[in-house]
Amino acid sequence: MLTQISLSTQFRNVRQHTEAICRPLQTEDYVVQPVVDVSPPKWHLGHTTWFWEEFVLKPHVRSYRLFHDDFSFVFNSYYETVGKRVFRADRGNMTRPTVEEVYRYRTYVDQHLIDFLENADPSPELEALIQLGLNHEQQHQELLVTDIKYILGHNPLFPTAALPLQWDEHRAASPEPLLIPEGVYSVGYAGDGFCFDNELGRHKVYLNDYALRPALVTNADYLDFLEAGGYRNFRYWLSDGWAWVNQHGISAPMYWHQIDGQWWHYTFDGLQPVVPDEPVCHVSYYEADAFARWQGSRLPTEAEWEVAQPYLNWGRRWEWTASAYLPYPGFQTAEGAVGEYNGKFMVNQMVLRGASIATPEGHSRPTYRNFFPPDKRWQFMGIRTVFNE
Amino acid sequence: MLTQISLSTQFRNVRQHTEAICRPLQTEDYVVQPVVDVSPPKWHLGHTTWFWEEFVLKPHVRSYRLFHDDFSFVFNSYYETVGKRVFRADRGNMTRPTVEEVYRYRTYVDQHLIDFLENADPSPELEALIQLGLNHEQQHQELLVTDIKYILGHNPLFPTAALPLQWDEHRAASPEPLLIPEGVYSVGYAGDGFCFDNELGRHKVYLNDYALRPALVTNADYLDFLEAGGYRNFRYWLSDGWAWVNQHGISAPMYWHQIDGQWWHYTFDGLQPVVPDEPVCHVSYYEADAFARWQGSRLPTEAEWEVAQPYLNWGRRWEWTASAYLPYPGFQTAEGAVGEYNGKFMVNQMVLRGASIATPEGHSRPTYRNFFPPDKRWQFMGIRTVFNE
Amino acid sequence: MLTQISLSTQFRNVRQHTEAICRPLQTEDYVVQPVVDVSPPKWHLGHTTWFWEEFVLKPHVRSYRLFHDDFSFVFNSYYETVGKRVFRADRGNMTRPTVEEVYRYRTYVDQHLIDFLENADPSPELEALIQLGLNHEQQHQELLVTDIKYILGHNPLFPTAALPLQWDEHRAASPEPLLIPEGVYSVGYAGDGFCFDNELGRHKVYLNDYALRPALVTNADYLDFLEAGGYRNFRYWLSDGWAWVNQHGISAPMYWHQIDGQWWHYTFDGLQPVVPDEPVCHVSYYEADAFARWQGSRLPTEAEWEVAQPYLNWGRRWEWTASAYLPYPGFQTAEGAVGEYNGKFMVNQMVLRGASIATPEGHSRPTYRNFFPPDKRWQFMGIRTVFNE
Amino acid sequence: MLTQISLSTQFRNVRQHTEAICRPLQTEDYVVQPVVDVSPPKWHLGHTTWFWEEFVLKPHVRSYRLFHDDFSFVFNSYYETVGKRVFRADRGNMTRPTVEEVYRYRTYVDQHLIDFLENADPSPELEALIQLGLNHEQQHQELLVTDIKYILGHNPLFPTAALPLQWDEHRAASPEPLLIPEGVYSVGYAGDGFCFDNELGRHKVYLNDYALRPALVTNADYLDFLEAGGYRNFRYWLSDGWAWVNQHGISAPMYWHQIDGQWWHYTFDGLQPVVPDEPVCHVSYYEADAFARWQGSRLPTEAEWEVAQPYLNWGRRWEWTASAYLPYPGFQTAEGAVGEYNGKFMVNQMVLRGASIATPEGHSRPTYRNFFPPDKRWQFMGIRTVFNE
Repeated sequence: MLTQISLSTQFRNVRQHTEAICRPLQTEDYVVQPVVDVSPPKWHLGHTTWFWEEFVLKPHVRSYRLFHDDFSFVFNSYYETVGKRVFRADRGNMTRPTVEEVYRYRTYVDQHLIDFLENADPSPELEALIQLGLNHEQQHQELLVTDIKYILGHNPLFPTAALPLQWDEHRAASPEPLLIPEGVYSVGYAGDGFCFDNELGRHKVYLNDYALRPALVTNADYLDFLEAGGYRNFRYWLSDGWAWVNQHGISAPMYWHQIDGQWWHYTFDGLQPVVPDEPVCHVSYYEADAFARWQGSRLPTEAEWEVAQPYLNWGRRWEWTASAYLPYPGFQTAEGAVGEYNGKFMVNQMVLRGASIATPEGHSRPTYRNFFPPDKRWQFMGIRTVFNE
Repeated sequence: MLTQISLSTQFRNVRQHTEAICRPLQTEDYVVQPVVDVSPPKWHLGHTTWFWEEFVLKPHVRSYRLFHDDFSFVFNSYYETVGKRVFRADRGNMTRPTVEEVYRYRTYVDQHLIDFLENADPSPELEALIQLGLNHEQQHQELLVTDIKYILGHNPLFPTAALPLQWDEHRAASPEPLLIPEGVYSVGYAGDGFCFDNELGRHKVYLNDYALRPALVTNADYLDFLEAGGYRNFRYWLSDGWAWVNQHGISAPMYWHQIDGQWWHYTFDGLQPVVPDEPVCHVSYYEADAFARWQGSRLPTEAEWEVAQPYLNWGRRWEWTASAYLPYPGFQTAEGAVGEYNGKFMVNQMVLRGASIATPEGHSRPTYRNFFPPDKRWQFMGIRTVFNE
Repeated sequence: MLTQISLSTQFRNVRQHTEAICRPLQTEDYVVQPVVDVSPPKWHLGHTTWFWEEFVLKPHVRSYRLFHDDFSFVFNSYYETVGKRVFRADRGNMTRPTVEEVYRYRTYVDQHLIDFLENADPSPELEALIQLGLNHEQQHQELLVTDIKYILGHNPLFPTAALPLQWDEHRAASPEPLLIPEGVYSVGYAGDGFCFDNELGRHKVYLNDYALRPALVTNADYLDFLEAGGYRNFRYWLSDGWAWVNQHGISAPMYWHQIDGQWWHYTFDGLQPVVPDEPVCHVSYYEADAFARWQGSRLPTEAEWEVAQPYLNWGRRWEWTASAYLPYPGFQTAEGAVGEYNGKFMVNQMVLRGASIATPEGHSRPTYRNFFPPDKRWQFMGIRTVFNE
Repeated sequence: MLTQISLSTQFRNVRQHTEAICRPLQTEDYVVQPVVDVSPPKWHLGHTTWFWEEFVLKPHVRSYRLFHDDFSFVFNSYYETVGKRVFRADRGNMTRPTVEEVYRYRTYVDQHLIDFLENADPSPELEALIQLGLNHEQQHQELLVTDIKYILGHNPLFPTAALPLQWDEHRAASPEPLLIPEGVYSVGYAGDGFCFDNELGRHKVYLNDYALRPALVTNADYLDFLEAGGYRNFRYWLSDGWAWVNQHGISAPMYWHQIDGQWWHYTFDGLQPVVPDEPVCHVSYYEADAFARWQGSRLPTEAEWEVAQPYLNWGRRWEWTASAYLPYPGFQTAEGAVGEYNGKFMVNQMVLRGASIATPEGHSRPTYRNFFPPDKRWQFMGIRTVFNE
């Protein structure tokens, strides 16, 4: 658990893991932004560093001098309270600073930060901010993995890359559905470790009886849907989902390619055959919802998921829920730039629960609320279903 | 209540009200579609008629002959199960059939329908379908009002039109907040009258304490927000809302015009001064949410609204809630085309509760769930706020 | 010839012909703007009337009072020097003023104009302005025909409309190519009647030998191209043309529909079979150029066309030339709003020569330069080809 | 002159110059495509190499083995006859092959090509193809310079880069206008050296008297236009140009920045003050045409330019002409892929004459026809004007 080791060691570990993810990249791979959802790896490296410089070093280390005056402008993201925002779509055309300069920026900031952490006695507020910074960087570690996969997976040469990921274990899940009885339950974070603001406000919810599948939907299950014409029958789809399928010509999960009648998918090992008993991955909410409708099931709400999770095999896929991303009762936005963190995204997105193979060890929790718009699928998203009585 | 008078009388009344709404129009006003959300009044007249022809006359009256073979194609809407869909954006360029022909179509179908209703003894299923048709037509009556307002309100001549609407009464609302104590409550439709499928499945919810404002937000309240720079400060806005404000240059509710320092708004009486103590209207979810954040309050959830509604003055504005439009526990889609009615829209929309001055008498209910995407505001949408303890 | 009868009679004739074109319309047909190129017939009626009010009555008739203060705003077109321009794409959503009001506007302006013409003794400058106004209105007569065809031809009911047009005569053209010898020729307007500013500056050009086809390309010729896969082979197409074909899925001239293996096209008599020996019509420059390349011929330049025209059967189609629309040597823009007439369009357009069945009698001339962007085809555009030695 | 030294030496020189242009780049700079007009430098390096492999080595060297099977797909451009085309906008997201691999590709192909040239006795046809390849690569050398300038000039850090360019000399041009008398002149290429197909077909043209400015328009001249409100007065602009100015908010040449009331522009030496007596650069046809209209002059036609050029100081800017890019009389497209070279672009573009500081030594000619759409300005485009009598 993160909090049992010294802050400076935690910091070192997290920062090193970020760079370990990028180790297999060529310089060119760091630069591009093929779609607006994906950021250049170079930008992730710079942005996470800017966070430490802007929120810790600048306000707390009097003698600190900025590495470069323009980097705040270049590596800021959506935080509207810190200077002028770079138009996001331009990130992928900024060839300078170079990758080497960005690594020097990281080294410079790391040295100052470690020096600070080893000598300062941070207040509880500052320690909380540092925990937030560590978790922020872990979120970008996950995005680095998914963005690198997008960049390489959309290259006609299908390059391989040995990223430090923990791959799936094929644990046999009990075939028995997990029955949860009707009643009042509590959800939301209650401990005293780190959590994001959107998990706070543990509160009661009333749930009806439900029966949750202990195993995630597999590629074999999903192929049944696909081969039954699931992508061509509007009856299974939400109206917006059907428009999305038709506008983009969607006919399979992201990274899937049908070659001579056989299904392959891009992985970090290059193009590989789709393995039937692995959990299906890289599907949108629209696809997850359509699959469930076809199957006669439905997706769980986030409360149903959270109540059942002690009994679940997480399966290393983020799991789409039927819950829109909205504030918990009593949700309050923190003051200042850090307060822009989560609350401003609470519309037009769906909640995902669990964690994926791209999630850093120890980063997720049973109460962790991930969220994406319903058409996104470049994250490692999977499907779990629920059966009503 | 609709069900206490004969079906044929109910039918006659609803059909006549539709035409009464259109009486002040010129022929030209029936034709255009200035934005994709707005349908030409002519299309509403034809589409509601097609519903009766397609779902009642065709399957139930053996001798019935279609008024025109192509009208099913021309007046179908999103029902993907009935023939080929017209691309929606083209509706506003179809000058034929003429308005006169559409009225003849209405007369023809009305005669056959009334003849059928007065002589048949409909099964419960058929009676339910007819109630659905009446409610469907009432929904289009509301859309007729809002679409006509859009068409006339975006004309540089700002024409007047004497639509048969019940205008606001300025009932003084108690200034005391309405306190609702924590506990398990039930929501959803429970009676045996008509309701839409999305209201069914009365179920328990757990609510925390909350304090609801008995009166809607007024123009005076909203002007405070506006004049305090509410539209120019990103802190009050959801991220998507802030993008919407900036992309479209939004700086006031729809239909508002600032002329020589004074605020006016378009109404069916032409351009009129904004009246301070009337409820604010024609605001998007983004604006409602930003206003509440600025005020230090929040929007109610739909469950909070429904539990509190016996004590509320509805105020003749649809009221934005903080709830995404999602299925109730146990929601089931009906079979066939009628089953496409509501469920397919359960993503990317927010729930509104109450009713507006455009809602036909008796059409809404305490459990009625209206829904629109968060950027829409051409309906008569208002704001009610909640204060947490 | 226009100039041999009194100005007031000419005025009356032209104005009446405009209304004669619209006589077969229903009120609804006057209102819409299905694509940006097409203007609502109501707008043409108002705009041509505004021209007389703005440029003749306002400056020359002291006692004249505007029919309506806002009509200048509503019916102005691209003339940037006269007040604020209406955003063009909104024309099709302006249901007011009504068609009836626009006809009253015409009557009002006509009465004042005729009164003025019958009593005034116009200066040569004013007479020239009136001739410009008459020719301006004739240009809109042609656009009225083509825009009405677009509106009705894109309606799923394919309505008929008895417009006062002179239809094709099938004059047998000599099969012999017309040979024009190399040398210096003069082109441009030289007479003392009316012409547009872009025809002025008669000047010498040097032409090589060329052989022009005396007959226009027929539907039968064009079907050969189509059936030989002309639309699917990039070799015949300009790069921009090939992009246009693919982006819009073009596979036949505008208004053509293949039904059960047979080619039909929309005409004012409704959907009719394509007649093999009629001149092909409603093709873009890209299609005309691709056809010629496939045939091993080319399109004539405008100078080649003008030099050869005494020997040509015009064929009642505007004929695409291989000339870009550019100023003649010594071209000068006139002062004031009228000077915005033609010169500002001299880029990104190709010249057409001749006249079409929609061109008012006496409006075109051998030196007349019509022009459209290379992807347009809702005018009655045809093809004539040239063979090099 | 290129043809007086051995083919293999010419080849070596041209290939080395391409790499010399790229020497100041960082790896990151080779990868991106900030707008569709600009190609990644890596792509230029690969594409010019692919040309030699595809058109010389593959058909003429029996033992030749492709460097990489997929490179033909990756580095092809618009040649629709060679395999499947890469969607152009994706070029900027292809991080693989890496820059290093592309340089290895160049070395591999160079070795085989030099080996071939030193041992083969090429037929005249093959020699002509090799000359075409050399000129093709020189065209890409010019694009490399302009594309690198775009990539670096749109980076917020404004990096410097020491490209091997010949900079402007400020030669005093005679202030006297150059008078050319009316008459028949010949234009087009007539020699026996290399020229592009679009220059062929020397032919006669008839020109009126004209007076050409011997010096290019300077920054000082252009600032007069700018400061006189030239960008805000529609009277000076073509209709499409005015739309372009307003849609993109254009108010100065590309790369110009106004800082504290002073004009600066990005150069390869970083941000530098605008020098008054240097020729203005990076203006579109719309701007060149508007400037001339404001000045009471006009742009020359390409024939006027070519006839006058023996007496001109070229000024190292490509010079916009008033001529649309169209075929010369008798223009024929060559057979096969090479025949797609120029003819397919003969619509929607304007001709430029002369050469720029980015043009390789010896690449241009008095008859050389460069061409771009009228809104482009990332090439080194300048302005020369003509006065009519």
